[in-house]
Amino acid sequence: MPNEALERSRIHNVAIVGAGAAGLGCAVALGEFGVDDVVILDRHEVGASFRRWPQEMRFITPSFTSNAFGLLDLNAIVPGTSPAYTLASEHPSGVAYATYLDNVAQYFELQVKTGIDVCSVAVEANGTFTLTTTGRPVRAQHVIWAAGEFQYPNRNSFVGAEFCRHSSEVRTWQDLEGDQFTVIGGYESAADAAVSLVQLEKSVTVLARDATWNSEHPDPSISLTPFSLERLAWADSTGSVNLFGDVDITSVRVDGDRWLLHASDGRRWASETRPILATGFEGSLGRLDGLLEYDEDDILVVTEEADESTLAPGLFISGPILEHRGVNFCFIYKFRQRFAVIADAIAQRLGLDTTEAVAARRAAGMYLDDVTCCEESCAC
Amino acid sequence: MPNEALERSRIHNVAIVGAGAAGLGCAVALGEFGVDDVVILDRHEVGASFRRWPQEMRFITPSFTSNAFGLLDLNAIVPGTSPAYTLASEHPSGVAYATYLDNVAQYFELQVKTGIDVCSVAVEANGTFTLTTTGRPVRAQHVIWAAGEFQYPNRNSFVGAEFCRHSSEVRTWQDLEGDQFTVIGGYESAADAAVSLVQLEKSVTVLARDATWNSEHPDPSISLTPFSLERLAWADSTGSVNLFGDVDITSVRVDGDRWLLHASDGRRWASETRPILATGFEGSLGRLDGLLEYDEDDILVVTEEADESTLAPGLFISGPILEHRGVNFCFIYKFRQRFAVIADAIAQRLGLDTTEAVAARRAAGMYLDDVTCCEESCAC
Repeated sequence: MPNEALERSRIHNVAIVGAGAAGLGCAVALGEFGVDDVVILDRHEVGASFRRWPQEMRFITPSFTSNAFGLLDLNAIVPGTSPAYTLASEHPSGVAYATYLDNVAQYFELQVKTGIDVCSVAVEANGTFTLTTTGRPVRAQHVIWAAGEFQYPNRNSFVGAEFCRHSSEVRTWQDLEGDQFTVIGGYESAADAAVSLVQLEKSVTVLARDATWNSEHPDPSISLTPFSLERLAWADSTGSVNLFGDVDITSVRVDGDRWLLHASDGRRWASETRPILATGFEGSLGRLDGLLEYDEDDILVVTEEADESTLAPGLFISGPILEHRGVNFCFIYKFRQRFAVIADAIAQRLGLDTTEAVAARRAAGMYLDDVTCCEESCAC
Repeated sequence: MPNEALERSRIHNVAIVGAGAAGLGCAVALGEFGVDDVVILDRHEVGASFRRWPQEMRFITPSFTSNAFGLLDLNAIVPGTSPAYTLASEHPSGVAYATYLDNVAQYFELQVKTGIDVCSVAVEANGTFTLTTTGRPVRAQHVIWAAGEFQYPNRNSFVGAEFCRHSSEVRTWQDLEGDQFTVIGGYESAADAAVSLVQLEKSVTVLARDATWNSEHPDPSISLTPFSLERLAWADSTGSVNLFGDVDITSVRVDGDRWLLHASDGRRWASETRPILATGFEGSLGRLDGLLEYDEDDILVVTEEADESTLAPGLFISGPILEHRGVNFCFIYKFRQRFAVIADAIAQRLGLDTTEAVAARRAAGMYLDDVTCCEESCAC
């Protein structure tokens, strides 16, 4: 057989889509569980999403070198590593974090193929997967979808959203001309946009469905993180930011040289500059149409045993999109605890004994198999 | 018997000296282990040391609301609590943290007696302890010494140290007159002093034995924390700070209206303002003379089983002074893991079954009984 045909017929043990925090983290876990022939595909390069963050953006979860006392750096994706140590930084920038990911990929000799966009995934009659890509098709017995969210912004939240600028398109807030800005959204990316603009001495109006800055919910996936709360409080103290909660924007239209924003309760705002959409991300799961189940609230359904598709066994989901029993896994320190759960499932199906690897990961605080445990509450 | 005599003859199960992070943390642990009649003595009030921090000083370990995923807030002293949540702050000030400690004392109904300074501790013939205090003597079967360090500064590091101002005496850096300052020391309190002064647009010379800012050691008890490294890098970038490593100051003397500093290698510096001693703390263990053993390097020796005095059984030490096998426990997230180890030892001696309490604390990441595990290393 010619090489090309050989390659075409080869079925990898695992294909991982996405060379970000989740993809690399799963790959290292698979290695620990003895699974070889793992290929990672990314349409750009390692840590691509992080490299595209606005220059001013920082991690909202603090990194700290507390590994040795059983408290793994919140932003580490592998036990025994620490972005705080590698980067000498507590709130790394996206570019800095990508350096950490590069280090992980090199240290663990991960097989990353860059510049390959996976367009769709099909299940063959024998249960294996064929990934249609911008290069050759890739075949695998198991697929871990870890393509992240950041590069798949949510732009369809209301009529006229196309007239706005999504926060993820901003490379640096210094690029934006004008003095007065309007930010639509109330979560982390909205707080980041507002703070970054105030730091540039702009004035900012924030229009949010929920006044997250007043939330007392202890889960940082629902409330703002302490980092953002403190930065937003600083921005507020300058007098340059106006925060509005309970605002449900229903349309934006252009009127001459300004933008008019309408809310569901009849309130209106005018913006001198293109409104900034900080409405988050819809993720990349659209590319898996037909292979995934969603509940009545449009929440992704995966198995509690291994974050596996209920429709296409062998297809696993890793990353911030995960949700179990109402608890959102949209932080690295949350979703990383499922890497080894997926690795365990795959290794067992390949006939490997995983007892020791599970014990090691559990000891490292990187094996969360009981998803009922994670509701947040604080006595004080 | 009159009440006073009754009180005098009463022997508490446990007397804890110090109502700070360590003292309160041990008290809550004792409660969980079923030990009652625990009295906490403090010469000031709950969290007194934290209340005396310079206004500008912040926690160098970041707090985060990650409890529910098995990652207890680094600055929490009790499982299920989070300063990040209570204070909506990542790097709390000393005053803010004292509020958290107050909440803990109230929530767990701890018996704290304030305004009582313990001057010395004596062992009675029957093995119980009598604490001589500024009030009545207090008697107890077990003593946990948790008096901390911050209020016991190290002022005797060289000739003429008395001409300097110790960093812990500063209530706010705004109080200091002058434009040029000299800081002696290279660890966290030196970095904090330098950064705080540069923020006030002063220029600062830092004279340190070790250039901690260049250290690559992964243990934050040896290197500077990421928080301090980043702040010091910022201060350095302003051009207002001069960092000197390998400087062993041997004397300071006053010469007219300036201070002359001499180093062991012959180098000299002159300071226009009273030099700032950021040489750390010697702690309060001097009050336990004769009851504690020290090794040839003058490091406190306690048992690995329960941080207990090797000379006076029943006397336990808790807090940042702890050191085991060369690993320093001088962060809350480190020394808190020994609270329950002490509580376990005391509970067992009182005949209590501790199996369940140990398991619960272990699951919470607050029971470190193997001190060999804590050497830091990072792959990347």
